[in-house]
Amino acid sequence: MLSLLSLRRRIEAGALTPEGAVALAREAIAAREPEVAAVVSLAPNPVVPVHGPLAGIAVGVKDVIDTADLPTQLGSSIYDGWQPKTDAAAVARLRRLGAVPLAKTTTTPFAFLDPTATRNPRAPGRTPGGSSAGSAAAVAAGMLPLALGTQTGGSVIRPAAYCGVVGVKPSFRLLPTLGVKCFSWTLDTLGIFTASVPDAAHALALMSGRPAIDLPAGAPAAPRIGLLIPDFCDPAEADALEALGRAARAAEAAGAVVRDAALPSAVTAAFAEHGTIQDFEAAQALAWEYDNRRDALPPLLKAHLAAAQGIEPAAYDAARRITHAARRSLKAVFGAEAFDVILTLSAPGHAPEGYASTGDSRFNRLWTLMGVPCVNVPMPGGGPPLGVQIIAAFGDDGRALAAAHFLERALA
Amino acid sequence: MLSLLSLRRRIEAGALTPEGAVALAREAIAAREPEVAAVVSLAPNPVVPVHGPLAGIAVGVKDVIDTADLPTQLGSSIYDGWQPKTDAAAVARLRRLGAVPLAKTTTTPFAFLDPTATRNPRAPGRTPGGSSAGSAAAVAAGMLPLALGTQTGGSVIRPAAYCGVVGVKPSFRLLPTLGVKCFSWTLDTLGIFTASVPDAAHALALMSGRPAIDLPAGAPAAPRIGLLIPDFCDPAEADALEALGRAARAAEAAGAVVRDAALPSAVTAAFAEHGTIQDFEAAQALAWEYDNRRDALPPLLKAHLAAAQGIEPAAYDAARRITHAARRSLKAVFGAEAFDVILTLSAPGHAPEGYASTGDSRFNRLWTLMGVPCVNVPMPGGGPPLGVQIIAAFGDDGRALAAAHFLERALA
Repeated sequence: MLSLLSLRRRIEAGALTPEGAVALAREAIAAREPEVAAVVSLAPNPVVPVHGPLAGIAVGVKDVIDTADLPTQLGSSIYDGWQPKTDAAAVARLRRLGAVPLAKTTTTPFAFLDPTATRNPRAPGRTPGGSSAGSAAAVAAGMLPLALGTQTGGSVIRPAAYCGVVGVKPSFRLLPTLGVKCFSWTLDTLGIFTASVPDAAHALALMSGRPAIDLPAGAPAAPRIGLLIPDFCDPAEADALEALGRAARAAEAAGAVVRDAALPSAVTAAFAEHGTIQDFEAAQALAWEYDNRRDALPPLLKAHLAAAQGIEPAAYDAARRITHAARRSLKAVFGAEAFDVILTLSAPGHAPEGYASTGDSRFNRLWTLMGVPCVNVPMPGGGPPLGVQIIAAFGDDGRALAAAHFLERALA
Repeated sequence: MLSLLSLRRRIEAGALTPEGAVALAREAIAAREPEVAAVVSLAPNPVVPVHGPLAGIAVGVKDVIDTADLPTQLGSSIYDGWQPKTDAAAVARLRRLGAVPLAKTTTTPFAFLDPTATRNPRAPGRTPGGSSAGSAAAVAAGMLPLALGTQTGGSVIRPAAYCGVVGVKPSFRLLPTLGVKCFSWTLDTLGIFTASVPDAAHALALMSGRPAIDLPAGAPAAPRIGLLIPDFCDPAEADALEALGRAARAAEAAGAVVRDAALPSAVTAAFAEHGTIQDFEAAQALAWEYDNRRDALPPLLKAHLAAAQGIEPAAYDAARRITHAARRSLKAVFGAEAFDVILTLSAPGHAPEGYASTGDSRFNRLWTLMGVPCVNVPMPGGGPPLGVQIIAAFGDDGRALAAAHFLERALA
């Protein structure tokens, strides 16, 4: 894979120019794209800034995120050739940092569940996951050192786990969603994919303008880890549970304190509310498409939106109150007397075989609803990838990344 | 003015067709627009639905709100002729209800402070206020029975007060802001202008899908009113304070309990934080324009954005924490043991003379930050209009409108 920090070190040492670094990505795309199908469009001749902390970093931009120089087509024929006026706020920020938004990457239509044509570079015959399929697959295939995704259910952490890359869903609204096609304004969260945790921490610190999010120098401190095996939904597959146990033992062997964690009932009560909030808002977010271009909507989304029309405001309001209470209760799980982070499953198992489904988000939806930072740490080993998930308190993105880095090293 | 409910009653009685009702608005626009300059563009030949609870209602849409059939130009040359792909969610909803988005109405550029060319139909030689200048002026001039605006500081309540119409800034996100050009995602609130409080309550109940927001049948119950003269900012002008006293006495004479209200210090502490939150977010929301089209930005906005670049994330985070604490403290002001609503100033005085300024939002910004529903009730009488403001607890939009209706009748 292309490491963001490795590229930057070579550029700073004078061993590589920013132009040359972007050319590496372009060459990798040319080599791997026919097989992976992760790219929707490529900037033909972008200006490559010479200065800036991300100069030379080619970025993949999920095709629900507006770009002023490339169409934004949402994975849907309804948006064929659609050219937004401006860059999304996060894309404008990347350009200021010197990065080059080089490719628009595939997305399931409107970031819902209808699959893409993208293939999993690490698991032939299996889905790359969704909805941020192209961004995860492009990083996994070594085509790009950084890619943007969005998560409303499990659309960053799930494809990261399936493709064996680092994925970060930051705290809600740490990265602005302006210029991102909305599915649910309470849930939509902009996230990133990279080859390693240090790459992700560096990118997120720069993108958010918060240097404290970057990893501290030196070996990472041993975190207090709460090991969570969710009991609020269907259990995981044996392979995934075994991997989680392996990750916990590796962390413990490296010096972490690992104890079993349990969630307050007020938190698990919110698990069932995710769909009500998401769908009530999606019915509004996609009202124009539903009313004017319904026949062009893909089948899973069309059926889902049809059902969503019937959600009553009162049900939505109740779901928001339960969510609000859950967010307050979750604070007790973290903090001085409790855990630094939670270690849990990123997905129920390996990426499902075939391409009909993008997999299952049941180990992601609650955390998206809570707005807390989540990091997928890929497990080493052969075969289709598995990942585990590190979660911290709201606003504690730096702590989540530091613990993920600790685990990444412990597993190496 | 054109009353939404009067038009609907005539349509339901068969005395007017929806087509005829829209024609009335079109004729009024033709007659008044040369003098008022509230309209940016007009739908040339819109389909007028025959069915739907708002069939026949012509709507003005502030030109920062996307429409699929008319350009959305944000009051800025940067967006000359810009045609969005879709309707904003609120516009799609209005179409479902049978309404006709007939006119795009003027906005200050990007809904900030640089003035429009719109004139105040009720106060010659004075600003109509901003940023929702065209929507307020068009309703005041009898051109439209309903118009959409947005408020980030005081951009609905202030122009409503200056133009002598009812303005409602609902609870935060009661109406979706999808498809509305963002200035500050924490603050931007979609609101409406109408000729009367019953018109506003009916429209808001339909637009939000919450029938309980509409006024109950019969005479409105007498509310418990907290009379608030803000002491957290510069005082109001004598005329405005006199009008507020007059409103309080009229409410009391009609049976309301009116007592002096004071705000907890945790609430008034948030007053100073509005600008930090707004500007930190605006710098991101308008990053593309600032980086790529800076010379085309109007002077007040350009200077403001230049200063906003320097706001540190830490200052923003601190402002959010203070705001969060204020919202919790504000709950104690309302409720069973306290007030149903607050009655306070809508603006510091009459609309300022001339057109260099759109007036002052200091009596609006705190309430926008709190996310609570606000209604401007116009004061009767000659001369340039004055208004007073009714405010209720978050989510209590129906109570705010019922109290505003009580006051409107008491003043009549």
